[in-house]
Amino acid sequence: MAKKQSPHIFERLALIGIGLIGSSIARVAKRDNLVGHISVSARTQKSLDKAMELGIADSVSLDQKAAVKDADMVIICAPISAYQEIIEAIAPGLKPGAIVSDVGSVKQAVVRDLGSHIPEGIHLIPAHPVAGTEHSGPEAGFPELFTDRWCILTPPLGTDEKSIDAVEAFWKAAGSDVEIMDPGHHDQVMAMTSHLPHLIAYTIVGTATDLEKTLRNEVIKFSAGGFRDFTRIAASDPTMWRDVFLNNRDAVLEMLQRFSEDITALQRAIRWGEGDTLFELFSRTRDVRRGVIEAKQEKMYD
Amino acid sequence: MAKKQSPHIFERLALIGIGLIGSSIARVAKRDNLVGHISVSARTQKSLDKAMELGIADSVSLDQKAAVKDADMVIICAPISAYQEIIEAIAPGLKPGAIVSDVGSVKQAVVRDLGSHIPEGIHLIPAHPVAGTEHSGPEAGFPELFTDRWCILTPPLGTDEKSIDAVEAFWKAAGSDVEIMDPGHHDQVMAMTSHLPHLIAYTIVGTATDLEKTLRNEVIKFSAGGFRDFTRIAASDPTMWRDVFLNNRDAVLEMLQRFSEDITALQRAIRWGEGDTLFELFSRTRDVRRGVIEAKQEKMYD
Repeated sequence: MAKKQSPHIFERLALIGIGLIGSSIARVAKRDNLVGHISVSARTQKSLDKAMELGIADSVSLDQKAAVKDADMVIICAPISAYQEIIEAIAPGLKPGAIVSDVGSVKQAVVRDLGSHIPEGIHLIPAHPVAGTEHSGPEAGFPELFTDRWCILTPPLGTDEKSIDAVEAFWKAAGSDVEIMDPGHHDQVMAMTSHLPHLIAYTIVGTATDLEKTLRNEVIKFSAGGFRDFTRIAASDPTMWRDVFLNNRDAVLEMLQRFSEDITALQRAIRWGEGDTLFELFSRTRDVRRGVIEAKQEKMYD
Repeated sequence: MAKKQSPHIFERLALIGIGLIGSSIARVAKRDNLVGHISVSARTQKSLDKAMELGIADSVSLDQKAAVKDADMVIICAPISAYQEIIEAIAPGLKPGAIVSDVGSVKQAVVRDLGSHIPEGIHLIPAHPVAGTEHSGPEAGFPELFTDRWCILTPPLGTDEKSIDAVEAFWKAAGSDVEIMDPGHHDQVMAMTSHLPHLIAYTIVGTATDLEKTLRNEVIKFSAGGFRDFTRIAASDPTMWRDVFLNNRDAVLEMLQRFSEDITALQRAIRWGEGDTLFELFSRTRDVRRGVIEAKQEKMYD
């Protein structure tokens, strides 16, 4: 699959956005010599200066179109709400045969937003590296972020196979396991494994914030045993997550509805002292944990 | 506070139950020579044999009354639903001046269940070491479990100060920070920081289990990014947690009600595409995370 005969998987990589994910891509690409040149564009000169200072960019430009010039591979590493503007800016500057990819957590909306703007002869191969931390910004990245994590590709039907192979080779070289999936299916799976958990974590931390002040301070003080995990998840990038919920609305609402029904049933069981109902569920969920460990997802998102 | 002049904090410690918490207490007490003798009682001979084999018990007995004979400190390390039976069994065998404590996650119900059975001259000092893992049983324990964790004591008003000091000294020697609290207040704080997060984790993992089979398998396969954390929490001991919810009903239902209102508001915001509402909450929750890190609870429950 990987083009091992070539020294680089791509000669010229352009990254639009250099936050946690973008800078981690740049770091692993630099460390393992996966590309010949990294061109970076970002919204602020400060981020570009930081990228140069960190040695993870070979050239930088506030002008997105200039940044993608001659690039074989362009990866959009920005919040989904910025995609429309980005693709309109870069489309006229793309090299014939270039690949346009991204790292967004939602894929149907991406195919929709980018698809119609992709010029003839350009290959759109959306990607979702399922990896992250609660930290943001160029300094937050590290080259091992993608090691042993999934990267899901959702190329539209009929996409050039050689280009898909190249993107796959790139992510495998970055340490990921690669899976190809239908974008709608991706969005459903992620609604359950990632989007709903984040929504719940944000909610419960918000609920705690609204408590009477004394109680709130003690909740923070004694935040072991469950809540702490939620605060970590709920410290994730607000812009990114707003965009996720706005762009995966139907799947998130569907999963949220199922969750709400289930928690209402538990609420009733607690109110009426139905211990067996609680015990039965609590035993059942242990098996899922075993499945997760067997699926070797244990070390993900740490 | 600690009676450093004495070689042992208690000459004879009796543990009723030798699961994750009981065996961790035994391990740290052995390692740091905190007590002269550890007597263990458990429900099965198998657990007692295991305790002897692990070298964490000096004597064992299936007979709880026999196990507490001559003990200066008795710690009940069993699910709350077993407390009534245990206190009835051990009360006649307690040495005058002995301390009876426990490790339960709920404290008002404990004071209620144990309080009326405590003979004259015996000191009831309920305790809650806020520490744990998702693993259960005598083999799951380790002596560092309580290091830098909170241990909350909820002695009834008028409890013998010297006995409280001794329990505090014991937990400090085990590595914990000790706080004394009203049992009702303890239950409210824990409802938010621990009980509600566990309930939510159990629920969402249950919701995932009920998905159509293909989707369910993929949820397990791609369980990074949030869901994985929930599966770990939802793998905790079912009996213990059933008892927590049955015994802290009012506080849990109150916090759950607040949470439900908040998530319903978010559901509406997602449905109507109100990005600002989402962004505002997601930004606010970041501050709570900072508070948690400053409160040094970061390493708890790992």
